Amino acid sequence: MMRRLKPFLMFSLMLSLLVAGNGQGQVNHPANQPDSSYYRLASTLIDSALAHGRAYAMLQELVRVGTARLSGSPQAAAAVEWAYQTMKALGLENVHRQPVLVPHWVRGEVEYAAIVNSGRFGTVPLSICALGGSVATPETGITAPVVEVHSLEEVEKLGDRVKGKIVFYNRPLDPTQRVTFRAYAGAVDQRTYGAVYAARQGAVAVLVRSMSTSLDDVPHTGAMRYKPDVPKIPAAAISTLDAEFLSRALKADPELQVRLQLNCRTLPDVRSANVIGEIRGSQHPEEVILLGAHLDAWDKGQGAHDDGSGCVHVLEALRLIRALGLKPARTIRGVLYMNEENGLRGARAYADSARNSGLTHLVAIESDRGGFTPRGFTVGGTDDVLARIQRWAGLFSEIGADRIVRGGGGADISPLKKLGTVQMGLVVDSNRYFDYHHSDNDTIDKVNQRELELGAASLAIMAYVLSMEGI
Amino acid sequence: MMRRLKPFLMFSLMLSLLVAGNGQGQVNHPANQPDSSYYRLASTLIDSALAHGRAYAMLQELVRVGTARLSGSPQAAAAVEWAYQTMKALGLENVHRQPVLVPHWVRGEVEYAAIVNSGRFGTVPLSICALGGSVATPETGITAPVVEVHSLEEVEKLGDRVKGKIVFYNRPLDPTQRVTFRAYAGAVDQRTYGAVYAARQGAVAVLVRSMSTSLDDVPHTGAMRYKPDVPKIPAAAISTLDAEFLSRALKADPELQVRLQLNCRTLPDVRSANVIGEIRGSQHPEEVILLGAHLDAWDKGQGAHDDGSGCVHVLEALRLIRALGLKPARTIRGVLYMNEENGLRGARAYADSARNSGLTHLVAIESDRGGFTPRGFTVGGTDDVLARIQRWAGLFSEIGADRIVRGGGGADISPLKKLGTVQMGLVVDSNRYFDYHHSDNDTIDKVNQRELELGAASLAIMAYVLSMEGI
Repeated sequence: MMRRLKPFLMFSLMLSLLVAGNGQGQVNHPANQPDSSYYRLASTLIDSALAHGRAYAMLQELVRVGTARLSGSPQAAAAVEWAYQTMKALGLENVHRQPVLVPHWVRGEVEYAAIVNSGRFGTVPLSICALGGSVATPETGITAPVVEVHSLEEVEKLGDRVKGKIVFYNRPLDPTQRVTFRAYAGAVDQRTYGAVYAARQGAVAVLVRSMSTSLDDVPHTGAMRYKPDVPKIPAAAISTLDAEFLSRALKADPELQVRLQLNCRTLPDVRSANVIGEIRGSQHPEEVILLGAHLDAWDKGQGAHDDGSGCVHVLEALRLIRALGLKPARTIRGVLYMNEENGLRGARAYADSARNSGLTHLVAIESDRGGFTPRGFTVGGTDDVLARIQRWAGLFSEIGADRIVRGGGGADISPLKKLGTVQMGLVVDSNRYFDYHHSDNDTIDKVNQRELELGAASLAIMAYVLSMEGI
Repeated sequence: MMRRLKPFLMFSLMLSLLVAGNGQGQVNHPANQPDSSYYRLASTLIDSALAHGRAYAMLQELVRVGTARLSGSPQAAAAVEWAYQTMKALGLENVHRQPVLVPHWVRGEVEYAAIVNSGRFGTVPLSICALGGSVATPETGITAPVVEVHSLEEVEKLGDRVKGKIVFYNRPLDPTQRVTFRAYAGAVDQRTYGAVYAARQGAVAVLVRSMSTSLDDVPHTGAMRYKPDVPKIPAAAISTLDAEFLSRALKADPELQVRLQLNCRTLPDVRSANVIGEIRGSQHPEEVILLGAHLDAWDKGQGAHDDGSGCVHVLEALRLIRALGLKPARTIRGVLYMNEENGLRGARAYADSARNSGLTHLVAIESDRGGFTPRGFTVGGTDDVLARIQRWAGLFSEIGADRIVRGGGGADISPLKKLGTVQMGLVVDSNRYFDYHHSDNDTIDKVNQRELELGAASLAIMAYVLSMEGI
């Protein structure tokens, strides 16, 4: 197949290069519709991605080298090394590691919860895991009655009645949200702030229903926060199936207790790094189109969708542009950030360095929504900026990735807002993302190769066009 | 969750009903944009599907009751009974089984192939299965040298040189096709006609590379054909991984032989049935909007995507419309066809009966592309018909299923073309379909509940609007 396709690809590419120009005289192109040469180029990039794409192969490497690559872990260090070597091997320029000091939370060896002291149910183990950042329980665990709630406000209203108890947050993701990220956003306050609200009323621990769109047997972890003036109590995620079970069990036996044992802990900060590489702009090297994703991942599953897929989207987009011999007018830079999941230290370090770099970060595009079929892009900023990006929608029509709508870019690129950088996000089909997110189910067998490669192609097209035309 | 959503749903529904009217005076609505009431109704149907959809639960039943439900099998009979009882339980009208005589091909107990008599490789078993309709090998099998080819034309050119040999068709699906159905269409002639072309030149059997978009270990079966004047030789699918291996092995040892043993056979025809149920139109009961899918499936995997998903799309679309208390102006009829995979007997029987039914089949919409995220619809017919259907695209925008483009409907509804019925197809994301198609991998764990329910909602919206507005 490969041998048969190459002549066609080379022909298309030559055609594209003949008519696409090299960027000179095309900056701030006045037309409302992209030049037809961009259509041919987009098609050629998609052909190349589908026939010879390397995103999936790179993802296979990343999840083997750095499975469970939480900030500060040896696997995260291995992922940094892998990314650095991979960028070198791809022939990128200015490949370097930007030092970042990251938090180092470890899950520990003991994670256990069970319904106990129930006349009706006896002892029933529950599928749980510590939330990221949680403190441990005492070594002998915490055993306490359970109060089920559905919001932070409910805990405030209950006041004293949660004292000495385990607060069980059980508000599910709203299934009617068309975009599952909205459902997640509408429920995740329980995970992020649940421990603080419960501890304020004297609770001894929290269990939080997993932020999952599916009924499954595995807990989905994620970040939680403490506040300096509020006691730190242990916090764990419970699988959605066991959340449903615990809820029914509480109705049948409100006196039941839950025992919780965790020995997670926070160790001293660790030196780690963002990994950066680029294709220097041939006309305006000081103007940057940034492609971002995050190298770290939770210590559950393989981080295949979150955000291994985003990392290989970025690497493959750069590879595709180089493989076709394209010469971007502006610099296209890939930044694989460290510590998105539990600190955003890499994002802040990059933005701090960008401020005095002498570079202008025109636009940053983040891929942190998984490796599913691409659907389009979100764009922050003014109506005018949105309209200008929407000019390119037609380039993505043949693969149905042409929805360019208002929306946020992503956590890692958000500190660049202060520098005026336009924020964009690669949008992919969101239906399955939270089935896998932050859990043992986020493994590479949940990533489809075609869908992944199409995401990389979409990123490559947008990056190249923006490098030629600016915003 | 359910209890919390209901008041909202009821409110939306009441609003929708208040403003949507009952079809009177809305037939052949003159505007280019749908009335805003349809937007609210579409939203309510989608809410209902996402919060309380039953498509996935019905699919769970179907794949248990009738796994491997190939025409003529006891499982196909069980699927017919299940569909009939399900339509009754859903409260559909005019529920009945339409008799169809179907072919009865059985795979048999022996399916074996291996590389043999190779000095280099010794004996290496190959992952194969008989193609549907194939004759058996002699009981002791066929052992012969192998000729690899990539097209029917190549076999014709080779002529005598394939005599006494096994022809191995190894042209893969073109990965650069944006829609995988095109890739399938571009390769499936090898499976359908490979045996005829090879037998004409004196070959003794054929192996055909599986029609799969992935490299996997399982063979993908499917229909093949004989011609009356050409000897019938056995035909088997080989997994894509073993096709690649066999190809490499042949390069290293062109003298190797393959042994093939099959004892599949065709038994006498069996009485089976299409299963039909409807919501009678309140204004024009004699005008039919048909929703079609096929009940039969290959005897590999569970037929979860092909076409269990289509069947529950149809059933759930009808259920949703009834559950919201909607009164379609025209009849919306669900037809679950028998024998799409290897005969199309149900499709022909239905079209024959439709001719003299006194009913006008305005439009038929087929769902036979799997249970993935819906993307839109295909429409056959004139530009004018396409434009009129495209008026409704906006109703599907909120879930990104608003691509209404020219294209075929599907095999089961195609015999209705002669009656002037507009042909439509529900289009879903095609990237993963041929990874699973006709193989042991087509199981319900490959179907995502949200994606499936959204397909049913799309079908319900289109069916209801067409029932109110006609074409």
